[in-house]
Amino acid sequence: MNEKLYEGKAKILYPTDDPEILLTVFKDDATAFNAQKRGTIAGKGEINCKISAHLFQMLEGKGIPTHFIDTPAPNQMRVRRVQILPLEVVVRNIAAGSLCKQTGLPEGTILKQPLVEFYYKNDGLGDPLLTRDRLFLLELATPEQVDRLQALSREINVILGNFFNECGITLVDFKLEFGVDNRQKLLLADEISPDTCRLWNQSETDPNRRVLDKDRFRRDLGDVESAYEQVLARVLGVRS
Amino acid sequence: MNEKLYEGKAKILYPTDDPEILLTVFKDDATAFNAQKRGTIAGKGEINCKISAHLFQMLEGKGIPTHFIDTPAPNQMRVRRVQILPLEVVVRNIAAGSLCKQTGLPEGTILKQPLVEFYYKNDGLGDPLLTRDRLFLLELATPEQVDRLQALSREINVILGNFFNECGITLVDFKLEFGVDNRQKLLLADEISPDTCRLWNQSETDPNRRVLDKDRFRRDLGDVESAYEQVLARVLGVRS
Ligand SMILES: Nc1ncnc2c1ncn2[C@@H]1O[C@H](COP(=O)(O)OP(=O)(O)O)[C@@H](O)[C@H]1O
Ligand SMILES: Nc1ncnc2c1ncn2[C@@H]1O[C@H](COP(=O)(O)OP(=O)(O)O)[C@@H](O)[C@H]1O
Ligand SMILES: [Mg+2]
Ligand SMILES: [Mg+2]
Repeated sequence: MNEKLYEGKAKILYPTDDPEILLTVFKDDATAFNAQKRGTIAGKGEINCKISAHLFQMLEGKGIPTHFIDTPAPNQMRVRRVQILPLEVVVRNIAAGSLCKQTGLPEGTILKQPLVEFYYKNDGLGDPLLTRDRLFLLELATPEQVDRLQALSREINVILGNFFNECGITLVDFKLEFGVDNRQKLLLADEISPDTCRLWNQSETDPNRRVLDKDRFRRDLGDVESAYEQVLARVLGVRS
Repeated sequence: MNEKLYEGKAKILYPTDDPEILLTVFKDDATAFNAQKRGTIAGKGEINCKISAHLFQMLEGKGIPTHFIDTPAPNQMRVRRVQILPLEVVVRNIAAGSLCKQTGLPEGTILKQPLVEFYYKNDGLGDPLLTRDRLFLLELATPEQVDRLQALSREINVILGNFFNECGITLVDFKLEFGVDNRQKLLLADEISPDTCRLWNQSETDPNRRVLDKDRFRRDLGDVESAYEQVLARVLGVRS
Protein backbone atom coordinates (compact mmCIF):
# COMPACT_ATOMS: atom_id res chain seq x y z
CA MET A 1 0.00 0.00 0.00
CA ASN A 2 1.08 3.62 -0.57
CA GLU A 3 2.08 5.85 2.31
CA LYS A 4 -0.96 7.14 4.17
CA LEU A 5 -2.25 10.62 3.44
CA TYR A 6 -4.01 11.13 6.76
CA GLU A 7 -4.88 9.06 9.81
CA GLY A 8 -8.08 10.16 11.57
CA LYS A 9 -9.81 8.83 14.66
CA ALA A 10 -11.74 6.12 12.80
CA LYS A 11 -10.20 5.79 9.35
CA ILE A 12 -6.94 6.03 7.43
CA LEU A 13 -6.80 7.62 3.98
CA TYR A 14 -4.41 6.33 1.31
CA PRO A 15 -3.78 7.72 -2.17
CA THR A 16 -4.34 5.43 -5.16
CA ASP A 17 -2.94 5.48 -8.68
CA ASP A 18 -5.85 7.70 -9.66
CA PRO A 19 -5.43 11.14 -8.05
CA GLU A 20 -9.23 11.51 -7.88
CA ILE A 21 -9.69 8.31 -5.88
CA LEU A 22 -8.79 7.60 -2.25
CA LEU A 23 -8.71 4.35 -0.33
CA THR A 24 -10.32 4.56 3.11
CA VAL A 25 -9.36 1.92 5.67
CA PHE A 26 -11.81 1.64 8.58
CA LYS A 27 -10.21 1.06 12.01
CA ASP A 28 -11.45 -0.68 15.15
CA ASP A 29 -10.38 2.37 17.22
CA ALA A 30 -13.16 4.21 19.02
CA THR A 31 -13.04 7.68 20.55
CA ALA A 32 -15.63 9.84 22.28
CA PHE A 33 -15.94 13.25 23.96
CA ASN A 34 -13.52 14.89 21.53
CA ALA A 35 -11.05 11.97 21.85
CA GLN A 36 -10.75 12.24 25.64
CA LYS A 37 -12.15 8.70 25.87
CA ARG A 38 -10.38 6.08 23.77
CA GLY A 39 -10.89 2.37 23.19
CA THR A 40 -11.29 -0.40 20.66
CA ILE A 41 -14.42 -2.09 19.36
CA ALA A 42 -13.44 -5.47 17.93
CA GLY A 43 -14.57 -5.85 14.32
CA LYS A 44 -15.85 -2.24 14.08
CA GLY A 45 -13.70 -1.41 11.05
CA GLU A 46 -15.29 -4.12 8.91
CA ILE A 47 -18.79 -3.60 10.28
CA ASN A 48 -18.79 0.16 9.74
CA CYS A 49 -17.30 -0.19 6.28
CA LYS A 50 -20.02 -2.67 5.28
CA ILE A 51 -22.87 -0.65 6.79
CA SER A 52 -21.57 2.55 5.17
CA ALA A 53 -21.13 0.89 1.81
CA HIS A 54 -24.67 -0.48 1.90
CA LEU A 55 -26.18 2.86 2.92
CA PHE A 56 -24.18 4.90 0.39
CA GLN A 57 -25.30 2.57 -2.43
CA MET A 58 -28.89 2.71 -1.23
CA LEU A 59 -28.75 6.55 -1.14
CA GLU A 60 -27.12 6.72 -4.60
CA GLY A 61 -29.99 4.58 -5.90
CA LYS A 62 -32.38 7.25 -4.62
CA GLY A 63 -30.56 10.16 -6.23
CA ILE A 64 -28.17 11.32 -3.50
CA PRO A 65 -24.66 11.99 -4.87
CA THR A 66 -22.06 10.25 -2.66
CA HIS A 67 -18.30 9.66 -2.73
CA PHE A 68 -18.73 5.85 -2.69
CA ILE A 69 -17.06 3.75 -5.39
CA ASP A 70 -16.59 0.18 -4.10
CA THR A 71 -15.14 -1.99 -1.32
CA PRO A 72 -11.96 -3.81 -2.43
CA ALA A 73 -11.69 -5.50 1.01
CA PRO A 74 -14.07 -5.94 3.98
CA ASN A 75 -12.71 -2.87 5.86
CA GLN A 76 -11.69 -0.84 2.79
CA MET A 77 -13.70 1.59 0.73
CA ARG A 78 -12.65 3.38 -2.44
CA VAL A 79 -14.12 6.85 -2.58
CA ARG A 80 -14.04 9.93 -4.79
CA ARG A 81 -11.56 12.38 -3.33
CA VAL A 82 -13.24 15.60 -2.20
CA GLN A 83 -12.36 18.77 -0.32
CA ILE A 84 -14.27 18.15 2.90
CA LEU A 85 -16.26 21.22 4.07
CA PRO A 86 -15.19 21.86 7.69
CA LEU A 87 -18.76 21.25 8.85
CA GLU A 88 -20.57 18.46 10.60
CA VAL A 89 -24.20 18.49 9.57
CA VAL A 90 -26.31 16.90 12.31
CA VAL A 91 -29.91 15.92 11.65
CA ARG A 92 -32.06 15.21 14.70
CA ASN A 93 -35.47 13.53 14.85
CA ILE A 94 -35.49 12.84 18.60
CA ALA A 95 -33.68 14.84 21.29
CA ALA A 96 -30.48 13.20 22.61
CA GLY A 97 -26.87 13.98 23.48
CA SER A 98 -25.63 17.57 23.41
CA LEU A 99 -29.04 18.92 22.34
CA CYS A 100 -30.45 17.72 25.68
CA LYS A 101 -27.49 19.04 27.68
CA GLN A 102 -27.73 22.45 26.05
CA THR A 103 -31.49 22.92 25.97
CA GLY A 104 -32.76 20.92 28.93
CA LEU A 105 -35.08 18.91 26.64
CA PRO A 106 -35.47 15.38 28.05
CA GLU A 107 -33.76 12.62 26.04
CA GLY A 108 -36.32 10.96 23.84
CA THR A 109 -38.41 14.07 23.14
CA ILE A 110 -39.80 13.64 19.62
CA LEU A 111 -39.10 16.84 17.68
CA LYS A 112 -42.08 18.31 15.83
CA GLN A 113 -39.88 18.60 12.76
CA PRO A 114 -36.34 17.37 12.08
CA LEU A 115 -33.66 19.79 13.26
CA VAL A 116 -30.72 20.35 10.88
CA GLU A 117 -27.72 21.75 12.72
CA PHE A 118 -24.21 22.78 11.67
CA TYR A 119 -21.14 22.25 13.82
CA TYR A 120 -17.64 23.49 13.13
CA LYS A 121 -15.51 20.38 12.32
CA ASN A 122 -12.54 21.49 14.42
CA ASP A 123 -11.19 19.11 17.05
CA GLY A 124 -9.11 21.86 18.69
CA LEU A 125 -12.26 23.85 19.42
CA GLY A 126 -14.33 20.76 20.35
CA ASP A 127 -16.62 20.85 17.28
CA PRO A 128 -18.77 23.77 18.54
CA LEU A 129 -22.35 24.47 17.42
CA LEU A 130 -22.59 27.11 14.70
CA THR A 131 -25.28 29.64 14.02
CA ARG A 132 -25.82 30.57 10.36
CA ASP A 133 -24.15 33.93 11.04
CA ARG A 134 -21.08 32.33 12.65
CA LEU A 135 -20.79 29.89 9.75
CA PHE A 136 -20.68 32.82 7.30
CA LEU A 137 -18.43 34.90 9.58
CA LEU A 138 -15.90 32.05 9.46
CA GLU A 139 -16.52 31.62 5.70
CA LEU A 140 -16.97 27.86 6.12
CA ALA A 141 -19.44 27.64 3.22
CA THR A 142 -21.40 29.91 0.91
CA PRO A 143 -25.12 30.66 1.47
CA GLU A 144 -25.89 28.56 -1.64
CA GLN A 145 -23.90 25.63 -0.20
CA VAL A 146 -25.68 25.92 3.15
CA ASP A 147 -29.10 25.88 1.49
CA ARG A 148 -28.11 22.85 -0.59
CA LEU A 149 -26.65 21.07 2.49
CA GLN A 150 -29.90 21.70 4.37
CA ALA A 151 -32.04 20.36 1.52
CA LEU A 152 -29.83 17.31 0.87
CA SER A 153 -29.63 16.47 4.58
CA ARG A 154 -33.40 16.59 4.96
CA GLU A 155 -33.78 14.31 1.95
CA ILE A 156 -31.18 11.89 3.32
CA ASN A 157 -33.02 11.92 6.66
CA VAL A 158 -36.26 10.82 5.02
CA ILE A 159 -34.56 8.05 3.04
CA LEU A 160 -32.42 6.77 5.93
CA GLY A 161 -35.27 7.10 8.43
CA ASN A 162 -37.55 4.95 6.26
CA PHE A 163 -34.78 2.43 5.64
CA PHE A 164 -33.91 1.99 9.33
CA ASN A 165 -37.60 1.85 10.18
CA GLU A 166 -37.90 -1.22 7.93
CA CYS A 167 -35.00 -2.68 9.94
CA GLY A 168 -36.97 -2.17 13.17
CA ILE A 169 -34.59 0.64 14.14
CA THR A 170 -35.43 4.27 14.98
CA LEU A 171 -33.07 6.84 13.47
CA VAL A 172 -32.70 9.28 16.39
CA ASP A 173 -30.02 11.53 14.89
CA PHE A 174 -26.93 11.37 12.69
CA LYS A 175 -23.91 13.34 11.50
CA LEU A 176 -23.00 13.88 7.86
CA GLU A 177 -19.92 15.29 6.15
CA PHE A 178 -19.92 16.71 2.66
CA GLY A 179 -17.19 17.72 0.27
CA VAL A 180 -16.72 19.17 -3.18
CA ASP A 181 -15.02 17.19 -5.94
CA ASN A 182 -12.64 18.61 -8.57
CA ARG A 183 -15.66 19.82 -10.59
CA GLN A 184 -17.10 21.67 -7.58
CA LYS A 185 -19.85 19.08 -7.24
CA LEU A 186 -21.15 18.55 -3.68
CA LEU A 187 -20.94 14.88 -2.57
CA LEU A 188 -21.97 13.12 0.61
CA ALA A 189 -18.69 11.78 2.04
CA ASP A 190 -17.12 10.19 5.15
CA GLU A 191 -19.22 7.36 6.65
CA ILE A 192 -22.71 6.50 7.91
CA SER A 193 -22.47 3.96 10.71
CA PRO A 194 -23.28 3.31 14.37
CA ASP A 195 -20.32 5.63 15.08
CA THR A 196 -22.13 8.55 13.44
CA CYS A 197 -25.82 7.76 14.04
CA ARG A 198 -27.97 7.25 17.13
CA LEU A 199 -30.01 4.10 16.48
CA TRP A 200 -32.63 2.70 18.83
CA ASN A 201 -33.91 -0.88 18.62
CA GLN A 202 -37.69 -0.64 18.28
CA SER A 203 -38.24 -3.97 20.03
CA GLU A 204 -36.68 -2.70 23.27
CA THR A 205 -38.25 -0.04 25.49
CA ASP A 206 -35.55 0.12 28.17
CA PRO A 207 -33.56 3.31 27.45
CA ASN A 208 -30.22 1.53 27.89
CA ARG A 209 -31.04 -1.78 26.22
CA ARG A 210 -32.46 -0.18 23.08
CA VAL A 211 -29.18 1.64 22.21
CA LEU A 212 -27.47 0.15 19.10
CA ASP A 213 -24.82 2.82 18.50
CA LYS A 214 -21.66 4.46 19.84
CA ASP A 215 -23.56 5.62 22.95
CA ARG A 216 -22.96 2.04 24.26
CA PHE A 217 -19.24 2.90 24.18
CA ARG A 218 -19.64 6.55 25.35
CA ARG A 219 -21.80 5.56 28.30
CA ASP A 220 -20.14 2.19 29.11
CA LEU A 221 -23.35 0.26 28.49
CA GLY A 222 -21.53 -2.96 27.47
CA ASP A 223 -22.22 -5.28 24.52
CA VAL A 224 -20.83 -2.73 22.07
CA GLU A 225 -19.63 -5.26 19.48
CA SER A 226 -22.88 -7.18 19.40
CA ALA A 227 -24.90 -3.99 18.96
CA TYR A 228 -22.81 -3.02 15.92
CA GLU A 229 -23.15 -6.57 14.57
CA GLN A 230 -26.90 -6.43 15.00
CA VAL A 231 -27.13 -3.18 13.04
CA LEU A 232 -25.09 -4.74 10.20
CA ALA A 233 -27.23 -7.87 10.13
CA ARG A 234 -30.45 -5.85 10.01
CA VAL A 235 -29.12 -3.43 7.37
CA LEU A 236 -28.05 -6.32 5.13
CA GLY A 237 -31.30 -8.19 5.82
CA VAL A 238 -33.60 -5.52 4.43
CA ARG A 239 -34.12 -5.52 0.68
CA SER A 240 -34.79 -2.07 -0.75
CA MET B 1 -39.31 48.59 51.95
CA ASN B 2 -41.60 45.75 50.86
CA GLU B 3 -40.41 42.18 50.89
CA LYS B 4 -38.22 41.42 47.88
CA LEU B 5 -39.72 39.68 44.86
CA TYR B 6 -36.46 38.24 43.56
CA GLU B 7 -32.76 38.52 44.31
CA GLY B 8 -30.52 38.03 41.27
CA LYS B 9 -26.75 38.06 40.94
CA ALA B 10 -26.53 41.86 40.50
CA LYS B 11 -29.88 43.32 41.52
CA ILE B 12 -32.80 42.88 43.89
CA LEU B 13 -36.37 43.44 42.70
CA TYR B 14 -39.01 44.89 45.05
CA PRO B 15 -42.70 45.42 44.39
CA THR B 16 -44.13 48.94 44.73
CA ASP B 17 -47.64 50.23 45.45
CA ASP B 18 -48.24 50.20 41.70
CA PRO B 19 -48.38 46.59 40.45
CA GLU B 20 -46.99 47.71 37.07
CA ILE B 21 -43.87 49.25 38.64
CA LEU B 22 -40.87 47.51 40.25
CA LEU B 23 -38.00 48.94 42.27
CA THR B 24 -34.58 47.57 41.24
CA VAL B 25 -31.77 47.84 43.79
CA PHE B 26 -28.30 47.48 42.25
CA LYS B 27 -25.80 45.48 44.34
CA ASP B 28 -22.00 45.64 44.64
CA ASP B 29 -21.85 41.82 44.18
CA ALA B 30 -20.01 40.59 41.11
CA THR B 31 -20.14 37.12 39.57
CA ALA B 32 -18.56 35.59 36.47
CA PHE B 33 -18.37 32.26 34.64
CA ASN B 34 -21.96 31.35 35.48
CA ALA B 35 -21.48 32.43 39.16
CA GLN B 36 -18.51 30.11 39.74
CA LYS B 37 -16.40 33.20 40.47
CA ARG B 38 -17.80 35.59 43.08
CA GLY B 39 -16.63 38.90 44.54
CA THR B 40 -17.54 42.49 45.35
CA ILE B 41 -16.80 45.66 43.41
CA ALA B 42 -17.04 48.61 45.86
CA GLY B 43 -19.50 51.23 44.62
CA LYS B 44 -20.63 49.11 41.64
CA GLY B 45 -24.32 49.24 42.61
CA GLU B 46 -24.46 53.04 42.41
CA ILE B 47 -22.20 53.29 39.38
CA ASN B 48 -24.12 50.73 37.32
CA CYS B 49 -27.45 52.25 38.32
CA LYS B 50 -26.30 55.71 37.21
CA ILE B 51 -24.76 54.49 33.94
CA SER B 52 -27.85 52.41 33.14
CA ALA B 53 -30.20 55.28 33.96
CA HIS B 54 -28.26 57.64 31.71
CA LEU B 55 -28.15 55.18 28.81
CA PHE B 56 -31.82 54.19 29.09
CA GLN B 57 -32.87 57.87 29.00
CA MET B 58 -30.57 58.56 26.08
CA LEU B 59 -32.04 55.57 24.19
CA GLU B 60 -35.63 56.62 25.02
CA GLY B 61 -34.82 60.02 23.57
CA LYS B 62 -33.88 58.28 20.32
CA GLY B 63 -37.06 56.23 20.11
CA ILE B 64 -36.10 52.96 21.85
CA PRO B 65 -38.82 51.81 24.27
CA THR B 66 -37.27 50.92 27.66
CA HIS B 67 -38.50 49.92 31.11
CA PHE B 68 -36.82 52.96 32.77
CA ILE B 69 -38.91 55.33 34.93
CA ASP B 70 -36.60 57.15 37.39
CA THR B 71 -33.94 56.76 40.09
CA PRO B 72 -35.36 57.45 43.57
CA ALA B 73 -31.92 56.83 45.15
CA PRO B 74 -28.35 56.50 43.77
CA ASN B 75 -28.48 52.70 43.54
CA GLN B 76 -32.23 52.37 42.92
CA MET B 77 -34.17 52.41 39.68
CA ARG B 78 -37.91 52.31 39.23
CA VAL B 79 -38.85 50.35 36.12
CA ARG B 80 -41.93 49.16 34.29
CA ARG B 81 -42.60 45.57 35.26
CA VAL B 82 -42.28 43.20 32.30
CA GLN B 83 -42.27 39.48 31.61
CA ILE B 84 -38.61 38.99 30.75
CA LEU B 85 -38.08 36.84 27.62
CA PRO B 86 -35.69 34.02 28.62
CA LEU B 87 -33.14 35.27 26.11
CA GLU B 88 -29.89 37.16 26.29
CA VAL B 89 -29.40 39.12 23.09
CA VAL B 90 -25.69 39.70 22.52
CA VAL B 91 -24.51 42.21 19.91
CA ARG B 92 -20.86 41.97 18.88
CA ASN B 93 -18.80 44.50 16.92
CA ILE B 94 -15.38 43.05 17.75
CA ALA B 95 -14.58 39.41 18.57
CA ALA B 96 -14.03 38.72 22.29
CA GLY B 97 -14.97 36.25 25.02
CA SER B 98 -16.90 33.09 24.17
CA LEU B 99 -17.04 33.97 20.45
CA CYS B 100 -13.24 33.66 20.32
CA LYS B 101 -13.19 30.45 22.38
CA GLN B 102 -15.81 28.83 20.15
CA THR B 103 -14.64 30.01 16.73
CA GLY B 104 -10.89 30.47 17.13
CA LEU B 105 -11.14 34.09 15.93
CA PRO B 106 -8.43 36.16 17.66
CA GLU B 107 -9.68 38.61 20.29
CA GLY B 108 -9.93 42.05 18.73
CA THR B 109 -10.94 40.88 15.24
CA ILE B 110 -13.21 43.61 13.85
CA LEU B 111 -16.37 41.95 12.51
CA LYS B 112 -17.39 42.99 8.98
CA GLN B 113 -20.90 43.53 10.27
CA PRO B 114 -22.31 43.42 13.80
CA LEU B 115 -23.28 39.92 14.94
CA VAL B 116 -26.60 39.60 16.80
CA GLU B 117 -26.73 36.38 18.81
CA PHE B 118 -29.32 34.78 21.08
CA TYR B 119 -28.46 32.83 24.22
CA TYR B 120 -30.84 30.90 26.43
CA LYS B 121 -31.10 32.82 29.74
CA ASN B 122 -30.89 29.73 31.92
CA ASP B 123 -28.25 29.61 34.67
CA GLY B 124 -28.76 25.86 35.18
CA LEU B 125 -27.72 25.21 31.58
CA GLY B 126 -24.95 27.86 31.57
CA ASP B 127 -26.70 30.31 29.19
CA PRO B 128 -25.98 28.28 26.02
CA LEU B 129 -25.86 29.74 22.51
CA LEU B 130 -29.09 29.29 20.55
CA THR B 131 -29.66 28.80 16.86
CA ARG B 132 -32.89 30.24 15.47
CA ASP B 133 -34.27 26.70 15.17
CA ARG B 134 -33.44 25.84 18.80
CA LEU B 135 -35.03 29.10 19.96
CA PHE B 136 -38.28 28.16 18.21
CA LEU B 137 -38.04 24.51 19.28
CA LEU B 138 -37.94 25.71 22.91
CA GLU B 139 -40.72 28.25 22.14
CA LEU B 140 -38.69 31.04 23.79
CA ALA B 141 -40.13 33.71 21.45
CA THR B 142 -42.23 33.98 18.30
CA PRO B 143 -40.67 34.58 14.86
CA GLU B 144 -42.15 38.12 14.93
CA GLN B 145 -40.53 38.78 18.32
CA VAL B 146 -37.17 37.49 17.12
CA ASP B 147 -37.28 39.74 14.04
CA ARG B 148 -38.21 42.72 16.22
CA LEU B 149 -35.46 41.87 18.76
CA GLN B 150 -32.92 41.69 15.93
CA ALA B 151 -33.97 45.04 14.49
CA LEU B 152 -34.15 46.80 17.88
CA SER B 153 -30.78 45.40 18.96
CA ARG B 154 -29.10 46.60 15.77
CA GLU B 155 -30.60 50.06 16.27
CA ILE B 156 -29.46 50.12 19.90
CA ASN B 157 -25.98 49.06 18.78
CA VAL B 158 -25.71 52.04 16.43
CA ILE B 159 -26.93 54.50 19.06
CA LEU B 160 -24.80 53.10 21.90
CA GLY B 161 -21.77 52.68 19.66
CA ASN B 162 -21.89 56.34 18.60
CA PHE B 163 -22.46 57.46 22.18
CA PHE B 164 -19.51 55.51 23.61
CA ASN B 165 -17.36 56.62 20.71
CA GLU B 166 -17.96 60.24 21.78
CA CYS B 167 -16.79 59.12 25.26
CA GLY B 168 -13.54 57.82 23.74
CA ILE B 169 -14.69 54.26 24.38
CA THR B 170 -15.09 51.40 21.88
CA LEU B 171 -18.24 49.33 22.30
CA VAL B 172 -16.89 45.82 21.69
CA ASP B 173 -20.03 43.84 22.57
CA PHE B 174 -22.99 43.92 24.96
CA LYS B 175 -25.88 41.85 26.30
CA LEU B 176 -29.49 43.01 26.32
CA GLU B 177 -32.64 41.65 27.95
CA PHE B 178 -36.12 42.44 26.74
CA GLY B 179 -39.56 41.87 28.20
CA VAL B 180 -43.21 42.40 27.37
CA ASP B 181 -45.39 44.69 29.50
CA ASN B 182 -49.05 44.06 30.40
CA ARG B 183 -50.08 45.42 26.97
CA GLN B 184 -47.73 42.99 25.17
CA LYS B 185 -45.39 45.86 24.27
CA LEU B 186 -41.72 44.88 23.91
CA LEU B 187 -39.44 46.96 26.17
CA LEU B 188 -35.67 47.00 26.63
CA ALA B 189 -35.18 45.99 30.29
CA ASP B 190 -32.54 44.92 32.84
CA GLU B 191 -29.36 47.09 32.79
CA ILE B 192 -26.66 48.44 30.45
CA SER B 193 -23.41 48.80 32.36
CA PRO B 194 -19.77 47.68 32.48
CA ASP B 195 -21.19 44.39 33.85
CA THR B 196 -23.05 43.78 30.58
CA CYS B 197 -20.84 45.49 27.97
CA ARG B 198 -17.24 45.11 26.82
CA LEU B 199 -15.79 48.62 26.71
CA TRP B 200 -12.28 49.48 25.54
CA ASN B 201 -10.59 52.79 26.33
CA GLN B 202 -9.56 54.29 23.00
CA SER B 203 -6.58 56.09 24.52
CA GLU B 204 -4.92 52.82 25.58
CA THR B 205 -3.52 50.27 23.14
CA ASP B 206 -2.33 47.67 25.67
CA PRO B 207 -4.94 44.85 25.54
CA ASN B 208 -5.12 44.66 29.35
CA ARG B 209 -4.93 48.35 30.20
CA ARG B 210 -7.68 49.34 27.76
CA VAL B 211 -10.33 47.14 29.43
CA LEU B 212 -13.00 49.21 31.26
CA ASP B 213 -15.54 46.50 32.02
CA LYS B 214 -16.22 43.30 33.95
CA ASP B 215 -13.37 41.55 32.15
CA ARG B 216 -11.09 43.33 34.70
CA PHE B 217 -12.88 41.25 37.37
CA ARG B 218 -13.18 38.06 35.26
CA ARG B 219 -9.50 38.09 34.33
CA ASP B 220 -8.14 39.55 37.62
CA LEU B 221 -6.70 42.60 35.85
CA GLY B 222 -6.97 44.83 38.96
CA ASP B 223 -8.29 48.44 39.23
CA VAL B 224 -11.85 47.23 38.74
CA GLU B 225 -13.52 50.04 40.74
CA SER B 226 -11.60 52.82 39.02
CA ALA B 227 -12.46 51.42 35.57
CA TYR B 228 -16.19 51.45 36.43
CA GLU B 229 -15.80 54.99 37.84
CA GLN B 230 -14.09 56.13 34.68
CA VAL B 231 -16.92 54.80 32.52
CA LEU B 232 -19.46 56.65 34.68
CA ALA B 233 -17.50 59.91 34.53
CA ARG B 234 -17.18 59.71 30.75
CA VAL B 235 -20.83 58.76 30.24
CA LEU B 236 -22.01 61.70 32.39
CA GLY B 237 -19.47 64.03 30.74
CA VAL B 238 -20.80 63.61 27.19
CA ARG B 239 -23.75 65.85 26.27
CA SER B 240 -26.09 64.24 23.78
N1 LIG C 1 -14.12 11.38 0.02
C1 LIG C 1 -13.26 11.95 0.86
N2 LIG C 1 -12.22 12.71 0.40
C2 LIG C 1 -11.37 13.29 1.29
N3 LIG C 1 -11.46 13.19 2.62
C3 LIG C 1 -12.48 12.45 3.13
C4 LIG C 1 -13.43 11.81 2.29
N4 LIG C 1 -14.33 11.18 3.10
C5 LIG C 1 -13.95 11.43 4.38
N5 LIG C 1 -12.84 12.19 4.42
C6 LIG C 1 -12.11 12.63 5.61
O1 LIG C 1 -11.33 11.56 6.06
C7 LIG C 1 -10.89 11.82 7.38
C8 LIG C 1 -10.68 10.51 8.11
O2 LIG C 1 -11.82 10.05 8.77
P1 LIG C 1 -11.88 9.98 10.35
O3 LIG C 1 -10.99 8.89 10.85
O4 LIG C 1 -13.33 9.94 10.69
O5 LIG C 1 -11.19 11.36 10.73
P2 LIG C 1 -11.47 12.43 11.91
O6 LIG C 1 -10.76 11.93 13.12
O7 LIG C 1 -10.87 13.71 11.34
O8 LIG C 1 -12.97 12.53 12.08
C9 LIG C 1 -11.92 12.79 7.95
O9 LIG C 1 -11.28 14.04 8.19
C10 LIG C 1 -12.93 12.93 6.83
O10 LIG C 1 -13.49 14.25 6.79
N1 LIG D 1 -38.45 45.55 34.06
C1 LIG D 1 -38.27 44.34 34.60
N2 LIG D 1 -39.33 43.62 35.01
C2 LIG D 1 -39.16 42.38 35.54
N3 LIG D 1 -37.96 41.78 35.70
C3 LIG D 1 -36.86 42.46 35.29
C4 LIG D 1 -36.96 43.76 34.72
N4 LIG D 1 -35.71 44.17 34.40
C5 LIG D 1 -34.86 43.17 34.75
N5 LIG D 1 -35.54 42.13 35.30
C6 LIG D 1 -35.00 40.88 35.82
O1 LIG D 1 -34.51 41.15 37.11
C7 LIG D 1 -33.65 40.06 37.51
C8 LIG D 1 -32.61 40.60 38.48
O2 LIG D 1 -31.44 41.05 37.83
P1 LIG D 1 -30.05 40.27 38.03
O3 LIG D 1 -29.53 40.49 39.42
O4 LIG D 1 -29.20 40.70 36.87
O5 LIG D 1 -30.53 38.75 37.92
P2 LIG D 1 -29.85 37.44 37.27
O6 LIG D 1 -28.91 36.90 38.30
O7 LIG D 1 -31.06 36.54 37.04
O8 LIG D 1 -29.20 37.88 35.99
C9 LIG D 1 -33.15 39.46 36.19
O9 LIG D 1 -33.67 38.12 36.11
C10 LIG D 1 -33.77 40.34 35.12
O10 LIG D 1 -34.13 39.59 33.98
MG1 LIG E 1 -14.52 11.32 11.65
MG1 LIG F 1 -28.47 39.63 35.23
